[in-house]
Amino acid sequence: MAQHLMSTSCSLKPSTNRKPCFKPNQFSTSYPAFVRTKTFGSPFKSLVLQGKRTQSHCTVHATVAPISDEAQTKPNSGSHHSTTEPSNPTRVMVIGGDGYCGWATALHLSNKNYEVAIVDSMVRRLFDHQLGLDSLTPISSIHDRIRRWKSLTGKTMELYNGDICDFEFLSETFNSFKPDAVVHFGEQRSAPYSMIDRSRAVFTQNNNVIGTLNVLFAIKEFGEACHLVKLGTMGEYGTPNIDIEEGFITITHNGRTDTLPFPKQASSFYHLSKVHDSNNIAFTCKAWGIRATDLNQGVVYGIKTNETEMHEELCNRFDYDGVFGTALNRFCVQAAVGHPLTVYGKGGQTRGYLDIRDTVQCVELAIANPAQPGEFRVFNQFTEQFSVNQLATLVTDAGKKLGLEVQTISVPNPRVEAEEHYYNAKHTKLIELGLKPHLLSDSLLDSLLNFSIKYKDRVDTKQIMPNVSWRKIGVKPKTVAA
Amino acid sequence: MAQHLMSTSCSLKPSTNRKPCFKPNQFSTSYPAFVRTKTFGSPFKSLVLQGKRTQSHCTVHATVAPISDEAQTKPNSGSHHSTTEPSNPTRVMVIGGDGYCGWATALHLSNKNYEVAIVDSMVRRLFDHQLGLDSLTPISSIHDRIRRWKSLTGKTMELYNGDICDFEFLSETFNSFKPDAVVHFGEQRSAPYSMIDRSRAVFTQNNNVIGTLNVLFAIKEFGEACHLVKLGTMGEYGTPNIDIEEGFITITHNGRTDTLPFPKQASSFYHLSKVHDSNNIAFTCKAWGIRATDLNQGVVYGIKTNETEMHEELCNRFDYDGVFGTALNRFCVQAAVGHPLTVYGKGGQTRGYLDIRDTVQCVELAIANPAQPGEFRVFNQFTEQFSVNQLATLVTDAGKKLGLEVQTISVPNPRVEAEEHYYNAKHTKLIELGLKPHLLSDSLLDSLLNFSIKYKDRVDTKQIMPNVSWRKIGVKPKTVAA
Repeated sequence: MAQHLMSTSCSLKPSTNRKPCFKPNQFSTSYPAFVRTKTFGSPFKSLVLQGKRTQSHCTVHATVAPISDEAQTKPNSGSHHSTTEPSNPTRVMVIGGDGYCGWATALHLSNKNYEVAIVDSMVRRLFDHQLGLDSLTPISSIHDRIRRWKSLTGKTMELYNGDICDFEFLSETFNSFKPDAVVHFGEQRSAPYSMIDRSRAVFTQNNNVIGTLNVLFAIKEFGEACHLVKLGTMGEYGTPNIDIEEGFITITHNGRTDTLPFPKQASSFYHLSKVHDSNNIAFTCKAWGIRATDLNQGVVYGIKTNETEMHEELCNRFDYDGVFGTALNRFCVQAAVGHPLTVYGKGGQTRGYLDIRDTVQCVELAIANPAQPGEFRVFNQFTEQFSVNQLATLVTDAGKKLGLEVQTISVPNPRVEAEEHYYNAKHTKLIELGLKPHLLSDSLLDSLLNFSIKYKDRVDTKQIMPNVSWRKIGVKPKTVAA
Repeated sequence: MAQHLMSTSCSLKPSTNRKPCFKPNQFSTSYPAFVRTKTFGSPFKSLVLQGKRTQSHCTVHATVAPISDEAQTKPNSGSHHSTTEPSNPTRVMVIGGDGYCGWATALHLSNKNYEVAIVDSMVRRLFDHQLGLDSLTPISSIHDRIRRWKSLTGKTMELYNGDICDFEFLSETFNSFKPDAVVHFGEQRSAPYSMIDRSRAVFTQNNNVIGTLNVLFAIKEFGEACHLVKLGTMGEYGTPNIDIEEGFITITHNGRTDTLPFPKQASSFYHLSKVHDSNNIAFTCKAWGIRATDLNQGVVYGIKTNETEMHEELCNRFDYDGVFGTALNRFCVQAAVGHPLTVYGKGGQTRGYLDIRDTVQCVELAIANPAQPGEFRVFNQFTEQFSVNQLATLVTDAGKKLGLEVQTISVPNPRVEAEEHYYNAKHTKLIELGLKPHLLSDSLLDSLLNFSIKYKDRVDTKQIMPNVSWRKIGVKPKTVAA
């Protein structure tokens, strides 16, 4: 009687995601062929994928941006670590290469004569449009960025514009570029974003976990020697009451001893997605012999690198808002516009921090000293620890020197986290590989503050206060009012 | 007597008869129209949800299966929750209630006078169709199962047919049934299935992780007091060289001590999905005050429970194939049909095992003794440890008594796992709550073997050998040849 009402046709369908790429067998056989368009007489090669997807009716374009003749005739991929000949530059695919860390890294590697391809879906820019946010700094389009870089240095970066959750796009990209190393920044990277509403939480975990799974499968299938350099986060560890080691801890228990993954206690759906990634990657290293480095990065601050300084079109993004802004950067903007520094709760939250110039250095060190086949290696990527209160004091003092009167207020903590806790995280492995840290100095703070003052007219003070609550997240999709 | 009167009077006000702990339905105003159809003269009430989804354009049907008049005037059935009034039986939603463990659990709880709703997408039956597999035992449709149970016992189980990854479906189901506890079996539960190809790996992680996230959001939004009883797996721990504790381990390190999540080392995309779930659940307990019990279950064997024995239409499924078959069950079928027992590799792989009669007992114990608000509780749910070689010997000996000549062969291990290792996992918490284990006995093995002999004509010997390799998994969707 009731049976005719039943539907099994939807049973495989995760409804909440815009990406249909996780459906078994759905697209593989029916997926339309690639259409390659050669534009003669132009330095552009375009690769257009027009996939009619049963479910989403969306079209995906995979575009390979400017490729110079040199790039097209370059020798096939070889590895660049110490045993490799200099004539074969290491080919590095930077996934998420249009983002804050990704762009700085892509430029740095290109400058260091790595052969760089940027893979990006541009979704970070979409988030800004959707949430009514903007970078403090004006940023150029990825196309202008790449063109400017080429005109300044003669160096080419390929661009693959698409979503790594779309495996057809990713596999085509892999087979086209043939990377020796993949640097994977291509994830939704904001904890508050993941706590806005249910659909953003689900998006974050699906996007990050499935994207990374796809990268692992692409490496297994198309480039087994390829070294995965994956951006994790120090936030994976939480704030345990013991010293935090780099990825693993040796435990003696009831008279027996083993070295095991360091216990994780992540505290947002974003941070959790990185824990899931780490676990998935560790498994594939063991099962498939993937070589991987998990860079558990601290909070990044700073704006300039040697490369972004070269031209305003290369300028990096700088986020100060309550969703994407990181603590120190946000404090500098607040000081510049006369907004009180917003300390969440008691301000005793202590984390690892690093200058963006060290981010790019660390990634290069990881690439130049790759993990062994089957090795899952974890580096804690930060240079100094600060509490939020310490940062507020530093910015207040630096502000004074510039004649700024800086106030600090405590706002109710929108997060669920310990506000006073023990924190001591090891971070020696990258130092051992040669990292020369740029420690937070008065001059850097001056420069950050001056930078913020320069762009203060672009600040939207409505975006500064935290507006995402860990406890109040709900199931209704949130829309930002105009 | 007084209780009976109270129950009767409550039943006149069905809307107030339920636990007052739920928030008002926040979705009802904006939710697309429900069509409630009363089929007069029939014992069926149907609830049809036609949700038009922007992305997928599919229609979801939520159907409430037979509800009798008797059920609507709910009988006074004692609750097992010590603090609940006897007139309000605990309402338990069993997600995945059509599966092997889920069906046995739903029947058991209904028999114990819990108010049970089954939520299932029937996707497990779809997997059989897609892979050309079948249960050893003939199994009835979920509709026939529920009808038969009603006709035998007078007890009603509601059926919600849909996918928990579809949040509209899940939220409607929650608001309709208003569970006091959710038992969540609703996941893709086979390690080999998750290792067939990329799309199944991605499906498994997406389906399991997002489904569980949706359950957590549904509890937060619609039933904060609801207790989540989530099926995890002992496979989350892997095989560390130290004793395995129940969820947490106290670590002293560099002179400081903390109790932290036990390190996980899962070794398939399926097992990893359960680790991801555990981490997500633990976070929501802390951030939102969810009360959750994570049951890290061992390998389940056996077929009969008190309830499934009552009628052949209540018979449970019994999987012996290389994808869904669990070790001991598969060995019994192999012995029955004269197929050598297939030991993977050296056979020293040791795991926790339990009788399905203990699965249902454990779940009931967890429900009857719920976690506290904000508590994330982990129980290791098994009763005995065996190595694969030990199981093979037990089945061989039991077979001899029945006149079967049982051979054992070692087949190349399709998995990546230690084949000789230390294994000692704690499992005292459920015993402390009152679990009376059904240990593996000669008589149970006899019964399992006789059962396998009874149905031996239904065995498809092509399905017995392992055909999914952890190392050879690829990106091309695999189709099973006819």
